Parts: sequence; structure tokens; C-alpha cells
Amino acid sequence: MSKPLDYENLNENVKKCQYAVRGELYLRASELQKEGKKIIFTNVGNPHALGQKPLTFPRQVIALCQAPFLLDDPNVGLIFPADAIARAKQFLAMTSGGLGAYSDSRGIPGVRKEVAEFIERRDGYPSDPELIFLTDGASKGVMQILNSVIRGPSDGILVPVPQYPLYSASIQLLGGSLVPYFLEETANWGLDINDLRQSVAQARFKGITVRAMVIINPGNPTGQCLSVANLKQIIQFCHQENLVLLGDEVYQQNIYQDERPFISARKVLLDMGPPISKELQLVSFHTVSKGYWGECGQRGGYFEMTNIPPKAVEEIYKVASISLSPNVPGQIFMGLMVNPPKPGDISYDQYVRESKGILESLRRRAHMMTDGFNSCRNVVCAMYSFPQIRLPPRAIEAANKLGKAPDVLYCLRLLEATGISTVPGSDIELDYHGDEDATDPGEKIVNPPWYVVGRVFTDKFINPKSLSDAMGKAWRLGEGMAVRELENNVFIF
Amino acid sequence: MSKPLDYENLNENVKKCQYAVRGELYLRASELQKEGKKIIFTNVGNPHALGQKPLTFPRQVIALCQAPFLLDDPNVGLIFPADAIARAKQFLAMTSGGLGAYSDSRGIPGVRKEVAEFIERRDGYPSDPELIFLTDGASKGVMQILNSVIRGPSDGILVPVPQYPLYSASIQLLGGSLVPYFLEETANWGLDINDLRQSVAQARFKGITVRAMVIINPGNPTGQCLSVANLKQIIQFCHQENLVLLGDEVYQQNIYQDERPFISARKVLLDMGPPISKELQLVSFHTVSKGYWGECGQRGGYFEMTNIPPKAVEEIYKVASISLSPNVPGQIFMGLMVNPPKPGDISYDQYVRESKGILESLRRRAHMMTDGFNSCRNVVCAMYSFPQIRLPPRAIEAANKLGKAPDVLYCLRLLEATGISTVPGSDIELDYHGDEDATDPGEKIVNPPWYVVGRVFTDKFINPKSLSDAMGKAWRLGEGMAVRELENNVFIF
Ligand SMILES: Cc1ncc(COP(=O)(O)O)c(C=O)c1O
Ligand SMILES: Cc1ncc(COP(=O)(O)O)c(C=O)c1O
Repeated sequence: MSKPLDYENLNENVKKCQYAVRGELYLRASELQKEGKKIIFTNVGNPHALGQKPLTFPRQVIALCQAPFLLDDPNVGLIFPADAIARAKQFLAMTSGGLGAYSDSRGIPGVRKEVAEFIERRDGYPSDPELIFLTDGASKGVMQILNSVIRGPSDGILVPVPQYPLYSASIQLLGGSLVPYFLEETANWGLDINDLRQSVAQARFKGITVRAMVIINPGNPTGQCLSVANLKQIIQFCHQENLVLLGDEVYQQNIYQDERPFISARKVLLDMGPPISKELQLVSFHTVSKGYWGECGQRGGYFEMTNIPPKAVEEIYKVASISLSPNVPGQIFMGLMVNPPKPGDISYDQYVRESKGILESLRRRAHMMTDGFNSCRNVVCAMYSFPQIRLPPRAIEAANKLGKAPDVLYCLRLLEATGISTVPGSDIELDYHGDEDATDPGEKIVNPPWYVVGRVFTDKFINPKSLSDAMGKAWRLGEGMAVRELENNVFIF
Repeated sequence: MSKPLDYENLNENVKKCQYAVRGELYLRASELQKEGKKIIFTNVGNPHALGQKPLTFPRQVIALCQAPFLLDDPNVGLIFPADAIARAKQFLAMTSGGLGAYSDSRGIPGVRKEVAEFIERRDGYPSDPELIFLTDGASKGVMQILNSVIRGPSDGILVPVPQYPLYSASIQLLGGSLVPYFLEETANWGLDINDLRQSVAQARFKGITVRAMVIINPGNPTGQCLSVANLKQIIQFCHQENLVLLGDEVYQQNIYQDERPFISARKVLLDMGPPISKELQLVSFHTVSKGYWGECGQRGGYFEMTNIPPKAVEEIYKVASISLSPNVPGQIFMGLMVNPPKPGDISYDQYVRESKGILESLRRRAHMMTDGFNSCRNVVCAMYSFPQIRLPPRAIEAANKLGKAPDVLYCLRLLEATGISTVPGSDIELDYHGDEDATDPGEKIVNPPWYVVGRVFTDKFINPKSLSDAMGKAWRLGEGMAVRELENNVFIF
């Protein structure tokens, strides 16, 4: 007899949900790693795992918060600067019981105040700490909000394609419907409001009411910053269609171009003035995992709610309470990120030097990757290393025979040959299930006889030369395929 | 027009779920705190918030892991003992990228191995690290597993009453049905298998298939350790009824009596031998939040799966992956808890002295509280300060007039009068909704004209004398009630 936790008896939403970032590729990569092979994981941005050093000051402060008995040690000044000591004392005074006590489920009030002040400085409008909830990373915040929005399969969430797989996976897990909208590579990954309207209309035709729209700005994996004009259009669209706008702004520090700065959805909304600025419901997300912090393992994040009525805020609070409190060290990291050392502080120069160094290195590498890919025939690559790779018909055939998407097979080969673990583009472009109308890049003929096989989603921490070598090698191993063709036409770097 | 995140449009499961530990009482307490009143929160066990000091050694190790640059500092030895330094190096070597990198979504393999070794030492049977997942506290683990089990409202979960509200709230949030079973105060809070059978039969009659059974052992709020005989019965029962057993064993260090030690469900199961030991599905939960650690804010926990097939484990892994990784510092705390300093280590004596001190103080206070309550007329209290308080009919009437459960009103008055924030027993005894057959303690006549009004769930960190004074004071403020009666008959301490 089958048992409650046998596969066939699990919650269908659990089984249905796909999680590309840790899917087949990741599992195979983990196997290889266990067998002793050196694997470079590029499936998720995890900079410290690839050698990025943490910023010193926040780590000093958190170490002192964890070991408050050091604050009375006469030797502490030999190891820690005075401003780190002062800051640790401030944070400890904000908690009741230090890092070992559950905080309020929304996070420590003092840290939420620091976040509100940061938002005010950034946007020029005051922010209310009561509408800011700290979370264990942005992922948890996104899931909390989606859980409040999604009531069943007829509730749709507009999600950009290509997307970050958190969204598709969470929507599936929560039993909602993903409604894709397509970012236009040719329009600098901006979005066309007419396409949006069409996506909503198509969904409605299938009985799905769209209730929320996700924007990822700056984009992942596409890397664009949305323009103010585009953001305004989006906001107006959400207002007309009665959607809550979910602004994933975790990459707001990762700006690798000078032409278009990051501007928050909240600022654009408030700039638009009433009535819309008082009506549109907006939730914005941020994290300590990205930018020059890259403190992924600490799990610190927040979301800020705009125009969400108090009764709904209370419900979101209640649900947050079930897991008691976000981790307190992660909250302190968030406090430090939004309120770093100031000019005149002992640690200021070091902090600026370190963060600039990291940001410049990220920026340099992003450009190298993009340029490297774009110098390849049959590879097209926008910012953030989301290269579009064209494969010949015989490569597609070979993949079809194995029952795999061509880019999945490509990525698997790449992994086996080189230890570089990537995310196949089809996973993040096509994992909205049940949408038969979606264009399958594997079927779309671009320039016969070439096909777009989705993309390889990489990361900014790999030496582009070694990746491009690697990509060639991967295909050279492809038995049964038009090896020469590939070598000659696709992967000559 | 109403908007997607207006109260009336929220996911019904979100709205339905009650969370007693942070419900009406907690919100009122927070308000009072904001107004400047000193509040003692006893609504959730949060020992550091009430003055318990963290153990030194683990905090030293984690501070060093957070500040790895200190490991090269020539002065580090002035502040940190050599074994803490060595241990920090070991942990950092287990990660790839230190605490700032996402770990595997199941947790750091090296820490999972330490957990497996701890379980083997404790139970006498080897444990497989691949079946151990680290989590952000036990709460998150429980929710993950319930999410896999619950498919819809006809899936029932057996939960002890009185219970810890995590279970009722999570089951409601996930859209399942709570099936209560009652712990017998007169049988040392043990459970009667015939009652269990009846609960399952009653549920079935309502169209609910029970799929899992939760035990909290040692109990919260009841404080008992289940006997081996009782555990065997429970295991056999789950096996017969094809239920997965969820063993919440977070209080395994909190043993305040000598007669009956804690024995894990897993040990009892494996002692029973095949076939049952190879068949019964069991998931066991643990945390760094309880015991003499009390590191609630760090959010470290694990669950261990027994007899769960690999395909289901993979699905649970996939869902864990959506939020990338549990917080890494919390994982290190778990590693330290299961593998503390050993005899001969520099920090061993201090570690033993500190943990013994905390445990003895907890134990002493638990006894003081219980004895204190039991010395009161019309108050009956088992271990762990879960006192049963009897109120006269006019007190019940007054509460009814206000549309509140009598014990909720009592707790609110207690809070206003004294700043002590408790959990009304009715919240944790009765918050399984939709079960009309449940006995309402407010209606059950114990010893006419006295009523049991549920309980006041307190904590072990309050001076019992001040609490009992406070309880009297609370009622003295009760306008509209038979004040004298209360004073004379119920709250003369
Ligand atoms: C677009 C986007 N949103 C959210 C996240 C989640 O980050 P975290 O949960 O670590 O804050 C990521 C992580 O890579 C991301 O790329
Ligand atoms: C019975 C029980 N289970 C689980 C928990 C959750 O603890 P945590 O999520 O902090 O590990 C608690 C906390 O008080 C508890 O009492």
C-alpha cells in the first residue's frame, strides 16, 4: 500500500513545481561534485562561493553582536575599530535579548526604521517602518506576498519571460497561474504595453483573472534598467487593470552602464501624484544577497508595502508570525546595508574602497562576458550574460531523439565536459506550464537552418575566456551530432 | 473598486488561519509597549529576551566564522580560545565561500554529517546525512513537510490538544484539516489510543482522511515525556492507519524530572525491528531555539526523514530550493549544538558549567511555577506552567457579554494590569475550526458553579510570585464582574 509521503501521494502543487535553478542540471552537477569533479556553479548568483570577499565593516559589527561579551574585553580595540564597536552596541540596544531572541515577526523596529530612512533618501519620499517587513532573503518575502494574492488556479500573475525561476516555482507551489509577458531584447529588454494587454486578454479568455504583475528591475537575467517612461506605463497599466505591482529590485546596486540609472517603482509612482500614487498597490523587494554585498548565506531581505490597507497588512503580519521571526543576524546585515559607514567614520574609507572595488570588478567582467559572447558567430548576447545560441538542425534532432530540450542537452554536455553548471534558457523561458500558445524557441526558425535553443544563463564570476573555450569543448564531445558543423559554425570563439 | 491586496480579496486560507501565539493578546501587548508600558512577553518561549545569556563557546565560533579575517590577526588569541579558532576554521572549510554564500538547499553537507553522528550517538542507530535537511528553525521544517502532505481540505492531520499553535496555523494556511486528539492531564498528559482511533473515525465520518499525526515530545505546553510504551502504541497506530508520524522533539533537552527520560520516536521505531521499522514513515524535528541554547533568533533547525522514499525526498529538496538555502550561521549553530566541546577541549569545562547552570535554573523555575499555581485554590497546574483556572459563572457571563472567550478576557485584563502577555488556553485548545463537535471548555461544568476557562500559557522565566500577584490584580480591575467572588474564591494566593 502506498504511504502518505510516497511520491504519488504528495501534494500535486509540490510535484508540479519546477525549479530550474536547482533542477536536472544542478542535480547532475552535484553528483559530479560528489565524484570529485571540480564544479563551477553559475546556476545562481552566489559571489562569495566564487571568491568574492565580504565587506569588512559589516562582518566586524555582526561578529561583535554575536559575541557581546567581547564588548567588555579590554583587548577588543586591538582587533575591532571603534565605529564597529559602537555600531554593534547600537544594534544590540535595538534588540531585546541580542541575536538569540526572536524578534517581532516583521523584524526589529530599529532596523525597519533604518530601512525606511534609506528608502526616503533614495526616493525623496518618506517611508513608514510599519509597512516594511524584514525577511529571510527576498525569496521568502516574495513567497509571502504571492501566498496572500493567490487563491487558486484562476488567479494569474504576470511574470516577465525570461524570468527568475523563483516566480514560476512559487506560483506553481501556491497553485496559481503564471501569465507570461515577453521582454523585448531588441528594445533593450523593455516591455511593450500592448503585449501586456494581450497577455492579460489571453489569460482572461482562459478563465484566468490576472491579479498581480511582477517586474524585475534591474532585470535578471536580462540586466536592463527600466526607463522612467516604461515604469510609468507599467504603473498606469496595473492601475487600469487593477493589479498589484510586485517590484523585485534586488539588483538595484548592480548597475553596469551609465546611461540609465536605477529608479524605484515607488519613486515613479509617487512622482505621478494622486490619485494613482494613493491607489496603486505596490510591494517592493530588496536583499543583502546581491549588489556588492553578495551576503547570500545570511538571508537578509525586506519588502515595503505601498497603498496596502492596514487590515491586509495585519494578515500578512499574522502569517509571517507563524515562523516566529526572520533570522536576526540577517536583519542586522540589512540595517548595515541601508545605513553603511558615513564620511568621517573610521571605517568609511575602507568601506568605500571595498565596495567600489567589487562593483567595478563586476562591471568589468559583465562587459567582458557580453563582448566575448558577441564576438562569436551564432551567439547573441545582451548584458548580464544571457547569450542566445543558435544551433544547427542536426543538433536539435539529436536532442529531440533524447527527449530533451536542445539547450538542456547543450548545458548537460557543457557540465560534463567542463564542470561549469549553467541554467538552460528553456527552463526560465518556458516553464509556465499549461500555456500551449507559448512560442517554443526550439521550434522558431530564426535564420534557416539555424535555431534559437534558448540560452545559457551564466553568471558574472567566470572568466569569459574559459567559458567560451568550455562551450566549444562541450559540443566537441557531442557524439551523434554534426560535430564539424558545430565547431565550424557555432563555437569558434 | 476593491483591489487585489484588500482584505476581502486575500487568499481565504491566509485569512482563516489563526495564530494564537501572536494574536489579539500579542497585538494589544505590542500597542501597550509602544505606549511606553513595560511588557513581559510570555507568549512564546524566548529565553534570551528574558535575560538568559547565550553559551559562550558557540558565540565565539560563529563570531570568528563571520569575521574570517580575524583568523590571521596576530592578536586573535588574546580574545578567542584556541579551540574556538580551530572550530571556526573547520566550519569555514565545510562551506564554499563562508557564511556569505548560499549553501546547498538542504544545508552544508559537513553539518548534516555532524547531525547524523549526533543522532547515532543518541539513538544507537546510524543516521544518513542525505535524509537530514537543515532549516531556518523547526517551524520552517514543519511547514515544508506539512506542505508536502496536505493536498486539500479532505487531508487531515492529527494534532494534540493542547497544542503548539504552529500546527493549527500551518494546517489552516495550507488548506488542510486539523483533527484534534486530546492529551489526558490525569494520565500525565499521555494519550489514549482508543481516543486516537475515535478521532480518526470521526474525521473519516466527515470525509476527512487522516494522513499524518503530530506528536510533541517532550510536550508543549504540557511538559510530559511520552513513555516508551506509549510511543510504541503510537507507532503501531500510525502504521495500522497508514499515517506519517511527525515527531516534534524540539524540547529534548528540556527535561525537568528524573523519572522519565526523553526517548526519540526514531529510537523506539528502530527498536521495534522489521517490518515496522522499515515501513513507518517518520519525520523528526529539532531546533537550536530551545533547551539550554535558546538561540531563537538564529533560526537553526533540522528535520530527519525515516523511511521516506528517495523520489519524495527529491521533491522536498526541490521545494526547499525555491528559497535557495537556510541561513548559514543558523546551520553552524546546529553543528555546534550537536557537536559541542568534548572532555579535554579548552572550552569544555566552561561549556558544561554554563549549560548545567541554565538547565538547573530552568528546572528550578518550572517547579516553582507549578508549585506556586498548585497552591492556589481553583487553579490546577501540571508541569510547564499550563495552569487550569476556574472562574465563577458571573465571570463567564461578563466575558460572553463582550463576545470574548472567558480566558481571553482574563488574559487581556492580566496584560493591562501587569504588562504580562500570556496566551489564553482556548487559543491553543480550540483553534481547530470547523469542528463543531469539539468540547468547549468554556461550557464544560467542572464543579458547579465553577467553569474551566482554558488556561494561561506562561513561561518559565517569570517569577511565580509576581505572576500570581498579577493574576489577582488583573481580576481586581474587572469591572462588571463579581470582583469579591473572584478575589475570595479564585485568586487568593
Ligand atoms: C531576481 C531575483 N529576485 C530574488 C532573488 C532572491 O534573493 P534572496 O532570496 O537571496 O534575497 C534573486 C536571487 O538570485 C534574484 O535573482
Ligand atoms: C513545540 C514547538 N515546536 C516548534 C517550535 C518552533 O521553534 P523554532 O522554529 O524556533 O525552531 C516551538 C517554539 O516554541 C515549539 O514550542
